[in-house]
Amino acid sequence: MKQYVFGVDVGGTTVKLGFFNVGGELLEKWEIPTRTEDKGEKILPDVAESIQKKMEERKIAKEDVAGVGLGAPGPIDSKGVVYVAVNLGWGTFSIKETLSGLLGLPVMAGNDANVAALGEMWMGSGKGSKDLIMVTLGTGVGGGIITGGKALTGVVGAGGEIGHIHVSDQETQPCNCGNTGCLEQFASATGITRLAKQKLAASSKDSLLRQGEVSAKTVFDAVKQKDGLAMEVAEEFGKYLGDGLAVIAGVVNPDTIVIGGGVSKAGEILIDYIKPHFDQTVFSGSGNVKFVLATLGNDAGIYGAARLVLDVE
Amino acid sequence: MKQYVFGVDVGGTTVKLGFFNVGGELLEKWEIPTRTEDKGEKILPDVAESIQKKMEERKIAKEDVAGVGLGAPGPIDSKGVVYVAVNLGWGTFSIKETLSGLLGLPVMAGNDANVAALGEMWMGSGKGSKDLIMVTLGTGVGGGIITGGKALTGVVGAGGEIGHIHVSDQETQPCNCGNTGCLEQFASATGITRLAKQKLAASSKDSLLRQGEVSAKTVFDAVKQKDGLAMEVAEEFGKYLGDGLAVIAGVVNPDTIVIGGGVSKAGEILIDYIKPHFDQTVFSGSGNVKFVLATLGNDAGIYGAARLVLDVE
Repeated sequence: MKQYVFGVDVGGTTVKLGFFNVGGELLEKWEIPTRTEDKGEKILPDVAESIQKKMEERKIAKEDVAGVGLGAPGPIDSKGVVYVAVNLGWGTFSIKETLSGLLGLPVMAGNDANVAALGEMWMGSGKGSKDLIMVTLGTGVGGGIITGGKALTGVVGAGGEIGHIHVSDQETQPCNCGNTGCLEQFASATGITRLAKQKLAASSKDSLLRQGEVSAKTVFDAVKQKDGLAMEVAEEFGKYLGDGLAVIAGVVNPDTIVIGGGVSKAGEILIDYIKPHFDQTVFSGSGNVKFVLATLGNDAGIYGAARLVLDVE
Repeated sequence: MKQYVFGVDVGGTTVKLGFFNVGGELLEKWEIPTRTEDKGEKILPDVAESIQKKMEERKIAKEDVAGVGLGAPGPIDSKGVVYVAVNLGWGTFSIKETLSGLLGLPVMAGNDANVAALGEMWMGSGKGSKDLIMVTLGTGVGGGIITGGKALTGVVGAGGEIGHIHVSDQETQPCNCGNTGCLEQFASATGITRLAKQKLAASSKDSLLRQGEVSAKTVFDAVKQKDGLAMEVAEEFGKYLGDGLAVIAGVVNPDTIVIGGGVSKAGEILIDYIKPHFDQTVFSGSGNVKFVLATLGNDAGIYGAARLVLDVE
């Protein structure tokens, strides 16, 4: 009986691994370092070895394991082929075939943001939904889209890369991607800090933000204390993100939008700034959407990776 | 052997029916009137009767038919449930179950724009693609999105309703949907006419457009004659549509964008105005996209409807 499944979340410095039962219960999690040297060629053998050791330790036979799911930062298509993952040193190859060859187990792979969305759908705040958008507000803005219970990967695995949709013609500073006016420039932690610094420089208004380091965290801490300038920053953040999510909802018609990433630690107040803008511009036919905060935190990746395997059973 | 399939495209005045072999060859097509009276309750019985008559006429047994696919103007989810189709008088019910009950054959149903996209993917200009966006530029702007070979329906069948994504904060005139700044206000035949009339009123520049009726057709006819004012209209049309499609491509990562609908009769020149704007704002990871004109015309709906059935086999 296939009663277990492994979920693997490959990051730039650490690989997180999770051992689950097929009901979605996390039985154990652990980490190993990500060895990115030599074009990252040690990463998958390290993962395979760690999983094999765990199976021996727990006396689990191959027949008991449904498979191994893996998420990684890069474009990965629905067949488990990665198309260059710069942070890991990887070129283009089939993760699915390589890891499956090492382990003799079924393997599925997906982009980390898509996989995190799948995790929140399975066991997090998106539970019960089959059509959701997850937006991850961290250093950048990541996105994962689930439609009909499956991750939207697109032709080369760039589906759901919503951080780089164009939301402003007025912006003149370039985004990391080379374009200007990307959502990430307004809605990421870096973007919020940028907006706050711009506002501080352009105004002589008193603000809590003048007292120390400016970050997405200090901005939303100040918002909670009704700091006028911080509230202007939050308003601008909310407008770009709310309008952007409304466009995406118009395209994919979800019932749930999950807000995750470091910035989401600010809490429900984020949604108070995003939702009014969303409601104002969204197409009514796609407008009945619930906003929730992610609940799985850094474990979303291992949950979603495990779910990838169960998805195809 | 299941060698045949029927495709049905329900419009506000006419129902188009197509009889295909499972290889995608259209063997015969015909039309019946759409009887929208009495909340449209006669539409599906009329369709069933017409199909039964055709099967008798051609001496085809039920065992030879893979099923019947149906597209209709309204939100229809992946289970074949329609959620109010105003033009047909329909409320909320299962098209799939009702028509299948009448015919004793497998039935699938989908939104007409999604179904047309599926048709272009199967036998039209999107042939070979499994990830495409079709945008239909008619009186309004319709859209169908195919991801992994299947139509993106969303939670209540509003997936791909890209005519109402918000593309302008500056617009003050309302769209038919009640919002302002929708893509449809700039990229539909009606929208192009509106832009042209605005430009004609705001400028005293000489233009071919001052000589007769202003329409999307006369605008692009004038563009082909290098009429300055018409070219300004085309430029604005191309900017909104190109930027809008770039956002959608950022979300779904397609390899093909199919331009259809009445406006697409203007030809390749449309793409000349859309693509430069698309290329400028699209995320590079999603940017390798081929633009093509639709080739199935009014038959896209019956092709796609037929394909809906084969999709699930």
